[in-house]
Amino acid sequence: MKKIINDPADVVAESLRGMAAAHPELLRVRSDPAVIVRADAPVPGKVAVVSGGGSGHEPLHGGFVGAGMLSAAVPGAVFTSPTPDAVQAAVDETSGGAGVLLVVKNYTGDVLNFETAAELAGIDGVEVRSVIVDDDVAVKDSTHTAGRRGVGGTVLVEKIVGAAAESGADLDRCEELANRVVSQVRSMGMALTAPTVPHAGQPSFDLAADEMEIGIGIHGEPGRARVPLTSAEDIVRRLLDPIVGDLPFASGDDVLLFTNSMGGTPLLELYLAHGIAERLLAERGIRVQRRLVGPYVTSLEMQGMSLTLLKLDDELTELWDAPVHTAALHW
Amino acid sequence: MKKIINDPADVVAESLRGMAAAHPELLRVRSDPAVIVRADAPVPGKVAVVSGGGSGHEPLHGGFVGAGMLSAAVPGAVFTSPTPDAVQAAVDETSGGAGVLLVVKNYTGDVLNFETAAELAGIDGVEVRSVIVDDDVAVKDSTHTAGRRGVGGTVLVEKIVGAAAESGADLDRCEELANRVVSQVRSMGMALTAPTVPHAGQPSFDLAADEMEIGIGIHGEPGRARVPLTSAEDIVRRLLDPIVGDLPFASGDDVLLFTNSMGGTPLLELYLAHGIAERLLAERGIRVQRRLVGPYVTSLEMQGMSLTLLKLDDELTELWDAPVHTAALHW
Repeated sequence: MKKIINDPADVVAESLRGMAAAHPELLRVRSDPAVIVRADAPVPGKVAVVSGGGSGHEPLHGGFVGAGMLSAAVPGAVFTSPTPDAVQAAVDETSGGAGVLLVVKNYTGDVLNFETAAELAGIDGVEVRSVIVDDDVAVKDSTHTAGRRGVGGTVLVEKIVGAAAESGADLDRCEELANRVVSQVRSMGMALTAPTVPHAGQPSFDLAADEMEIGIGIHGEPGRARVPLTSAEDIVRRLLDPIVGDLPFASGDDVLLFTNSMGGTPLLELYLAHGIAERLLAERGIRVQRRLVGPYVTSLEMQGMSLTLLKLDDELTELWDAPVHTAALHW
Repeated sequence: MKKIINDPADVVAESLRGMAAAHPELLRVRSDPAVIVRADAPVPGKVAVVSGGGSGHEPLHGGFVGAGMLSAAVPGAVFTSPTPDAVQAAVDETSGGAGVLLVVKNYTGDVLNFETAAELAGIDGVEVRSVIVDDDVAVKDSTHTAGRRGVGGTVLVEKIVGAAAESGADLDRCEELANRVVSQVRSMGMALTAPTVPHAGQPSFDLAADEMEIGIGIHGEPGRARVPLTSAEDIVRRLLDPIVGDLPFASGDDVLLFTNSMGGTPLLELYLAHGIAERLLAERGIRVQRRLVGPYVTSLEMQGMSLTLLKLDDELTELWDAPVHTAALHW
């Protein structure tokens, strides 16, 4: 296993220490349980937006903590759901009296632990709602998941709801916006190589030198097909066709196109793939109005990519464009 | 070779097409020769700042084109210097009448080709100056280099001089600032794995499963030592000690610490390493006042990292903090 780490058991805690040191103006990190909290939390009178999940997908979610996006992120162990008490601690640290919205990726452990935390917080008198993100069109009922998995669309939910909360939207409206994004966003991913979880010490799966996996999950869960490695043109088509067909997206739609690296894929390749996706969408009459290109939802050092498409309306576009001030997104 | 590409010969051109599609508000891309140009170039009355070099180090340099940083970036083939006519085209596209500063990483081909371009531009009546960045303390007279190599410090030169040019500083002052940053910045890198150049199809070098290379260059040039893989703590010490000792940096110094991923190293590990570097510097009384953490000077999918330390003064700090609006840096 080739990693820049000390004891595998300490990876997340040590990484959070470095993150806190790197961004003192944006966030603070509390430990036992670990929570990454916006520096100025709680913000009185505003809805708090909290997300989280297993570590190893950075910058998701800690890189999105800050003004205009998340109030807190709850990092579990690598590829492991955070515990209910950690989620509850994040609610306690960020609740400003206007309620808390939990953004939860659809994995069984996450859904259960965030739900338990919401119940505990409710007993304490904090109004908590949850939105489940399940944007991955690749497979239904995967490893760790009932229904579809939550992947790249999560970033878009967090940005748009975070902007609404920042502007003073109430909990009902934040919840409605989050559900609207979930209903209009679709994703699919693929991998060239497997990641290695530090405490496992071995690649999560085997993939031959001439193979790729289409429809893979962000923890290396099986996809739709393991096929011979082909061209970028073919790879982008294999991701885009199921996405477009699922909602479906249609000619004349305005969309946000998010081209995501799984971690180990160079920007040189990612931009190349993005250009193909833009062209294929233009050929279908689907109008790309906003873009995001980079490694935002990763699977450690896994080489691969995902595409995410969000159908935009004026309101979602305005909230996407609103200022954001986090470690990973900043405008 | 596992890459998301079509024909290896077309990688850079296709990637630039995707970059242009991704950032229409920031930049435009001209082809034959390929140049990435700031959307509003030329800016009349302001110094233009132009850089470039081989592709494969993204986001360097194209990701730094925009307001407050580069006027243009000239991408060569992967790991190959751009031609003089491409550099000359970048000068032509960006010259606003106040002169052009070329930021050149110290590789023999780059220095020669940028020099030739500067002479050609001079004949055309454009005042062009060059600054050579040679911040890598690892080795002297390496593959492709006489003297020290230019690495992570290049990002800091481009940000600081770009801010000065944006504020209306004249060519003399931009040149002085660039040389001041070069004189006060030091870097060193390491690798766990080798990158694969698309048209080569094979890893650039061999590194055993339990080995790492300390002092490696960003094209996989040999470093100081090939040693058994150790802990993050040891790796950071092996990079930081030669950097601190070289300038030297001393107790009481204010510095910017730049913890850079070579591409394939996950953010989880990079923040972990950053935290160690912050602690080791604090133990020496060196005060980290500004930070940059992420994949900014990469070597395709190479796993590894580099550290860069810049001695700050009030002027450099103010220019670092000035607004920047590019694909890769934005605040």
